[in-house]
Amino acid sequence: MPHFTLEYSANLDGLVDIGKTVEVVRKAAVETGIFPLGGIRVRAIRCEYYAIADGRSNYGFLDMVLRLGEGRDLATRKKAGEHIFKALSAHLDPVFANSKFALSFDMQINDKETSWKRNNIHDALKVETVNG
Amino acid sequence: MPHFTLEYSANLDGLVDIGKTVEVVRKAAVETGIFPLGGIRVRAIRCEYYAIADGRSNYGFLDMVLRLGEGRDLATRKKAGEHIFKALSAHLDPVFANSKFALSFDMQINDKETSWKRNNIHDALKVETVNG
Amino acid sequence: MPHFTLEYSANLDGLVDIGKTVEVVRKAAVETGIFPLGGIRVRAIRCEYYAIADGRSNYGFLDMVLRLGEGRDLATRKKAGEHIFKALSAHLDPVFANSKFALSFDMQINDKETSWKRNNIHDALKVETVNG
Repeated sequence: MPHFTLEYSANLDGLVDIGKTVEVVRKAAVETGIFPLGGIRVRAIRCEYYAIADGRSNYGFLDMVLRLGEGRDLATRKKAGEHIFKALSAHLDPVFANSKFALSFDMQINDKETSWKRNNIHDALKVETVNG
Repeated sequence: MPHFTLEYSANLDGLVDIGKTVEVVRKAAVETGIFPLGGIRVRAIRCEYYAIADGRSNYGFLDMVLRLGEGRDLATRKKAGEHIFKALSAHLDPVFANSKFALSFDMQINDKETSWKRNNIHDALKVETVNG
Repeated sequence: MPHFTLEYSANLDGLVDIGKTVEVVRKAAVETGIFPLGGIRVRAIRCEYYAIADGRSNYGFLDMVLRLGEGRDLATRKKAGEHIFKALSAHLDPVFANSKFALSFDMQINDKETSWKRNNIHDALKVETVNG
């Protein structure tokens, strides 16, 4: 159910490994303990065209949105978000050190009345837990 | 006005035709009868980098968000969403059969007070209706 | 803080310069005077697969979503949105003249309780203001 979408400026390509970045977010999301493992999905979208601040091309950004289901109170969401943001931010320390960069993270809550899903990963994880 | 955005893991490339997938969604959206034809827009975004569940690379996902205008009651939205989700889900049966996969669909409602649009497709469709 | 994400059909490639388009939006956002300069981020995402209206492949679209922070009243947001939409729409006049095209723009407000950010562009802009 938790969906993390990262949009990032293409000029990050040489500065950070995006494959590692989505894994950092996934791991931090697991560590919060508030999400079913089989529902976690993190992905990144590279943006070839962008314009930032006063328009200089040497700026970069990474913006993450988490869409999650209803049913967790604000304190729980804030604590989880804080944990994930800290992990992501620390992972990006070298980018901050070497460039002008903006990182952001916002949460949105999906309306449970208009939410549909089908997922065979939960069952696959259960089989693994039982069998091995 | 209805905007369908599909984000999907790049490993779906060999498993499903994404061009056909957006067409399945478009057709199902038309069938609901609640959207003006000229306002329907479905698109897909391929995500090269992703991390899912316990992090194994053989998992896949497709997540769809529909943003639509205000003015339709919950029952209407639920019924339309159900129809579209069923069509999309059935189209992806082979993916579920052959892989560990997560499909999801959520609706969001645009605030009509801060919504702008300009569209000459409506007029093109009217001309076709009149002229044949 | 203001995040502009443009999703567009790949068939716009020959019709409009997307690099210029994000710059048009950035410039218009600055002109509104309601956003801190260092927080503005505009980006575009090209959608290779799409299905529009009655499904003909010669239709195109560009859809923009602005996510912004809380704290500005509706009148302020409407006025700013109107200005930005006018600039973007005028920039796309040639696309409307030469094709069947749908342009749209919606605003969303981020929940300040679950919003995190880290940004060294603000400081870089201040240094420039002081030094040069």
